[in-house]
Amino acid sequence: MKAEIIAVGTEILLGDIVNTDAQVISLGLDELGIDVYYQTVVGDNPGRLREVLDIAKKRSDLIITTGGLGPTLDDLTRETIAEAFGKKLVLHQPTLRRITAFFDQIGREMTQNNVKQAMLPADCKVLENNWGTAPGCAFEADGVHVMMLPGPPRECTPVFRTAGMEYLSKLAGGVIVSHVVHIFGMGESQMEDRLHDLMEKSVNPTLAPYAKDGECLVRVTAKADTAAQAEQLLAPAVQQVCDMLGDVVYGIDIGSLERAMAEVMTEKGLTLSVAESCTGGLLSKRITDVPGASKFYKGGACTYCNEIKMKVLGVKKETLDKYTAVSTQTAGEMARGIAQAYGTDIGIGITGYAGPDGGEDGTPAGTVHIGIFYNGETQVRTIHSPRGRENARRDAANHALDLILRAAKK
Amino acid sequence: MKAEIIAVGTEILLGDIVNTDAQVISLGLDELGIDVYYQTVVGDNPGRLREVLDIAKKRSDLIITTGGLGPTLDDLTRETIAEAFGKKLVLHQPTLRRITAFFDQIGREMTQNNVKQAMLPADCKVLENNWGTAPGCAFEADGVHVMMLPGPPRECTPVFRTAGMEYLSKLAGGVIVSHVVHIFGMGESQMEDRLHDLMEKSVNPTLAPYAKDGECLVRVTAKADTAAQAEQLLAPAVQQVCDMLGDVVYGIDIGSLERAMAEVMTEKGLTLSVAESCTGGLLSKRITDVPGASKFYKGGACTYCNEIKMKVLGVKKETLDKYTAVSTQTAGEMARGIAQAYGTDIGIGITGYAGPDGGEDGTPAGTVHIGIFYNGETQVRTIHSPRGRENARRDAANHALDLILRAAKK
Repeated sequence: MKAEIIAVGTEILLGDIVNTDAQVISLGLDELGIDVYYQTVVGDNPGRLREVLDIAKKRSDLIITTGGLGPTLDDLTRETIAEAFGKKLVLHQPTLRRITAFFDQIGREMTQNNVKQAMLPADCKVLENNWGTAPGCAFEADGVHVMMLPGPPRECTPVFRTAGMEYLSKLAGGVIVSHVVHIFGMGESQMEDRLHDLMEKSVNPTLAPYAKDGECLVRVTAKADTAAQAEQLLAPAVQQVCDMLGDVVYGIDIGSLERAMAEVMTEKGLTLSVAESCTGGLLSKRITDVPGASKFYKGGACTYCNEIKMKVLGVKKETLDKYTAVSTQTAGEMARGIAQAYGTDIGIGITGYAGPDGGEDGTPAGTVHIGIFYNGETQVRTIHSPRGRENARRDAANHALDLILRAAKK
Repeated sequence: MKAEIIAVGTEILLGDIVNTDAQVISLGLDELGIDVYYQTVVGDNPGRLREVLDIAKKRSDLIITTGGLGPTLDDLTRETIAEAFGKKLVLHQPTLRRITAFFDQIGREMTQNNVKQAMLPADCKVLENNWGTAPGCAFEADGVHVMMLPGPPRECTPVFRTAGMEYLSKLAGGVIVSHVVHIFGMGESQMEDRLHDLMEKSVNPTLAPYAKDGECLVRVTAKADTAAQAEQLLAPAVQQVCDMLGDVVYGIDIGSLERAMAEVMTEKGLTLSVAESCTGGLLSKRITDVPGASKFYKGGACTYCNEIKMKVLGVKKETLDKYTAVSTQTAGEMARGIAQAYGTDIGIGITGYAGPDGGEDGTPAGTVHIGIFYNGETQVRTIHSPRGRENARRDAANHALDLILRAAKK
């Protein structure tokens, strides 16, 4: 089956945003064994969209569009597709009820233009959107499968990965099952080097390594007639990947470092608090991204000036004077200080130069010290992450989570 | 001039990488006043690339390709384009010398397949690549302008932004200038409802509204012969949008609520601290996303259990017992408590049910109270954001930033 992804959005053509939806969908179609031959971006212009659809109809078996499903005047994907495939748009009552209820709930008036989001091609399969107002939908016409998805990545990704992929897996035939091996503490090229021979000879399951948000992942995917058969193919391959990579593997299908950490902390009945300077609350935010974090996380302090580091965490004035706020010593005192102030088993202290500026003493931007206090002992890890403020903060939070995870596992 | 960007690369179709080159080029063309009508991605397949080129030739005046210029077997862009436009490939001696010198420099033997990177269409303009081996090039044929750029972003971006844009600026003529009006506190559909008539009749400047991360934006874009003339067209249109939307407009070209807030806080010389429960550090993280936040931000506390709310913020036990931790009363005491503990002019307190679970008393997930303490007074705003944990936390942080901004502006 040959697929084409069409993104509808002038904001992509203007360069305001990158077409990340296309990547998410391409990855999903790859998992399903569906080949993507083209990705196209066209503006919010019905004439040009129609031409693009006519080209796609001739060369593709499956067309997936993103965007243009919202309530505003320039959201014209639904109407243009219906016209191109000779489908009527009909009011989908359950969707209208859902949209009406949503506006009631947030206490805002629902303007009339929202109704058009509930107008869907007759006899389509509705792909429910629990992350926004406009639902997706899918149908077959003129021998082509068509799927429309909302454009905002926060809506497109979950709608596609749930209802969208479920719909497509029925078209694709057989089943595809994947497991993801999560890795922290090894670079992408080193990982690929280690797995190179295994990757070359793997046909089913296949191995796909990639890097994301400062971590690495290997997706192991098997095709079979049934899920059970796929799992049988997967088990030894996943084990082999884990064996080849060693203790940098922190979980299978676990989703993220914070989830892996939360699982172990909860299981061990340990408690945690964190003190952050340069990460500014990012670590605390990521810990509390995990529902149920309150089982082990008591809280944190963002100490963005020396005064608060001393007052809240008890960092010594002499330490700050002698070693500065960005030092292994300060990181260690922050970790111990928060654990004592908040009464927790484990305490974390993070201090560094996230950038754009480094220290006056010549310490480069991207230098971050991460202290951990546990069992009466303090340990500090120093990292260098020179690729901008956002990356430095993310990497520091990743290392802190890795430190907690390793301490809790012991 | 109508432009089309064609990326050649199977790795994009597999979802291994996002097509960021297209964004970089789109932004640059927008600056030059060249309209991008299409972005297309096609694999390393000469047959399909040829078809895509034939379509582009018919509908576009300028075709810019990225990728497929390397030394390996599947790099076929140069050959396919030469064929499509009836151009001969000839050896470009200066390029061959540069490539040979490059290999000498890194002490590696130049394999024979590298020579083909110096084969360029006859009579083309060579776009020098000082960041890699394959140069870009540009020519005109069959009434269409064609530009080829290397694919790796670290080569594509600088080659395009230097030699590429210089070449194109001669073709373009005229300029395009945009301003972005930032809006918080009004939904996309309501905004569009208010601006509907203005949008319909606007031709130059044009108005493009969109929603992003719980906020709304209106991009106002004008075309003119010079930047000054474009600004003259823009000024009254931007003013009109601001007048029609009222005080939900928080800035022009400011980037984000946190940046707008940081600007006003710094200007007014006010200081800030925040206490977070359900947002878990997200607000603090967003405040410190802004470089230089330390000028006004002293720090924050994530108080993820009652014990810490009482100990660190001085929230009264009676308040927690009588009204629970998720109440306007607790939010107010948190705001006052952090301002006093950290000694700041403004204090924020956030408490709520981010989800997936609501309160045991039936309070639905997505209910969040945001308290602000300023000038001895406490004010609390309650929001309902029922679309999942991530959105509820984002919306709560947005409202907190809005409260700070409005207080600081007074």
